[in-house]
Amino acid sequence: MTTLRTPGPTLGVVGGGQLGRMLAEAAAPLGVEVVVLDPTPDCPAAPVARDQIVAEFDDEAGIRELAARADVLTFEIELADQDVLERVSEDSGTPVHPDPATLETIHDKLVQKRTLEDAGVPVPPFRAVDGPDDVREAIDDYGAPVMLKARTGGYDGRGNVPVESKADAAEALESVAGPAMVESFVDFKREISVIAVKGDDETAAFPIGENVHEDEILRETIVPAGSEEAVEQRAREVAEDVLGVMEGRGVYGIELFEAPNGDVLLNEIAPRPHNSGHWTIEGAQSSQFEQHVRAVLGWPLAATDLRSPTVSVNLLGDVDKSRDAELRNVDRVLETPAANLHWYGKRQVRPLRKMGHVTLAGREGETTEELLETARELERAVTFTSE
Amino acid sequence: MTTLRTPGPTLGVVGGGQLGRMLAEAAAPLGVEVVVLDPTPDCPAAPVARDQIVAEFDDEAGIRELAARADVLTFEIELADQDVLERVSEDSGTPVHPDPATLETIHDKLVQKRTLEDAGVPVPPFRAVDGPDDVREAIDDYGAPVMLKARTGGYDGRGNVPVESKADAAEALESVAGPAMVESFVDFKREISVIAVKGDDETAAFPIGENVHEDEILRETIVPAGSEEAVEQRAREVAEDVLGVMEGRGVYGIELFEAPNGDVLLNEIAPRPHNSGHWTIEGAQSSQFEQHVRAVLGWPLAATDLRSPTVSVNLLGDVDKSRDAELRNVDRVLETPAANLHWYGKRQVRPLRKMGHVTLAGREGETTEELLETARELERAVTFTSE
Repeated sequence: MTTLRTPGPTLGVVGGGQLGRMLAEAAAPLGVEVVVLDPTPDCPAAPVARDQIVAEFDDEAGIRELAARADVLTFEIELADQDVLERVSEDSGTPVHPDPATLETIHDKLVQKRTLEDAGVPVPPFRAVDGPDDVREAIDDYGAPVMLKARTGGYDGRGNVPVESKADAAEALESVAGPAMVESFVDFKREISVIAVKGDDETAAFPIGENVHEDEILRETIVPAGSEEAVEQRAREVAEDVLGVMEGRGVYGIELFEAPNGDVLLNEIAPRPHNSGHWTIEGAQSSQFEQHVRAVLGWPLAATDLRSPTVSVNLLGDVDKSRDAELRNVDRVLETPAANLHWYGKRQVRPLRKMGHVTLAGREGETTEELLETARELERAVTFTSE
Repeated sequence: MTTLRTPGPTLGVVGGGQLGRMLAEAAAPLGVEVVVLDPTPDCPAAPVARDQIVAEFDDEAGIRELAARADVLTFEIELADQDVLERVSEDSGTPVHPDPATLETIHDKLVQKRTLEDAGVPVPPFRAVDGPDDVREAIDDYGAPVMLKARTGGYDGRGNVPVESKADAAEALESVAGPAMVESFVDFKREISVIAVKGDDETAAFPIGENVHEDEILRETIVPAGSEEAVEQRAREVAEDVLGVMEGRGVYGIELFEAPNGDVLLNEIAPRPHNSGHWTIEGAQSSQFEQHVRAVLGWPLAATDLRSPTVSVNLLGDVDKSRDAELRNVDRVLETPAANLHWYGKRQVRPLRKMGHVTLAGREGETTEELLETARELERAVTFTSE
């Protein structure tokens, strides 16, 4: 049985961006302290966390210091180095969750897809790419367009290139520097995601959300998604299968395509809390961040029920080039009943950089349609530009 | 219009106990930083706040340092010194909310009651006490028992002495060291409270909660309270009248008696977030802590709707004497769906010390009766004793 003391257990988090910040926010009420490791001095998580170690994500000395201060290690970025984490964990005796092996599996999208396909998870047809011919063959087999993807390092759509015809194959491949894979382009009805949690001897999943992307960056998440119950059920089954493949405890963001016929196909996995799960902070009985804290500590998981229809919208950098971050017209958000502001504490705004988000947790009788309309109005009203 | 930057505005809080900690938790998503001043090194708020100034609550040099670092000053304890706050605020130009004058009004219970009575707020009959004869006269006028109260320094029922008969007057008065007042003992149907907020040019109030005290310490808050709608309406009117008397922005905890005939009488006021409002963190669209942050900064207030039936229960020190805090059987709380644990991060547990609380936010169809039963089970299950 768990005993709480003061200070409580310490979570060592590799990465101190907005995910680390929201982890620290969720850890505080539980008496759990957070120390983050991040190369940017005074990173977003720093003001909320107990402490920050300023070091690169793969800096072994820094991670050793983190391990020495922590009861459990975890990470909020895929850039964490699995070899360093494994070595430090073994030497220090401080466990890492999820398991660094999971990072390795997910890091390379080709390995990720192969592992999941082997486990029976439905994935779009894909193949390895060694040269332009592989892309052309994929177009023959799957039909155009196909999606060419960098096997490693992609994030928020970076490294994903749609290829419309065989004539474009060579040029497209050159634009993806490094190893690549190619996938059938899924003509989806909607994009959905499941935020799933792997605990000590239990799993949990939040209700599925519908995700709206633009330029391959998440803009909005809407819960409940407009999917049929059978699709929701299928998405949960797929999430369970994914968790079966993943090693180590924690939250996994599982992005899925819902096909027009109701089939569910896996898009991508993040071995950490995910942007499409930020709505859980207000919209569900517990948040993905609290669940991650509980899971990595080996504590029991919390309830995941939806509390009311909920919409979240990202506040992205609407600027042409980097500048000091100044978000104007914030009163429009503050004045809107049931709008919850989350500011990530980044000093610089860059084009399309994630600077914060707003969650609208529906009040009595409010529908997702109404909430989405309000959310879009708010997103348009606030701005980093200074006309 | 408000513009958000990084770092955001800084709130300087006199006091770094659990209220300061929960203020810091609520401030973080808004991009608001918190610096607390507290004499206990590594006080409960310290791990969550940006920084702590270690100094006594009335230490002028410390409060000057706090003012220099803050955009607005506030306090989470009535022990804050109104003269020092006023002087520092005037010299530094850093505003204080609520106004220190409010502290002065509330600090002396006799002044508090007189001020409120003058403003038309319904209060139990009361009088000043200069000697035992005043207590005896009160018994003649109001009937026994009467409630003898220390005019200053009382907290969680300390300094409140019921006097059953005239023969006990002298002894009771001796037990209340210092100036006293006496009040009619209110034979209430239930104790309720309104958490009210005074903003820049608006006010707000959360739904009333029913409070269960034992040994004059709050044990449980139940929302919605079992009161008739007319009582709720009357309580809100009284709260509005109270806010009219109070100077300066912020949250006020307003404790009331509901009489058997539905009348509402003022018991006491706290010029700060209040234990009976902790349920708002999960139970309402916004929390009393977020509202306090918004109010003192002069930002718009948030929605106060109830999200679902909610019950919160205090975790008090169930020990005979001080010892290192170790709360056992915490899994019982963690395993309970919709139970939210709040640990205050105090190193020592003392008899009846407030160490944390648990809030049960009702899921679909759950009633306050069911939630209360579960809350009481959990409160009994966890313990600081070690057999």
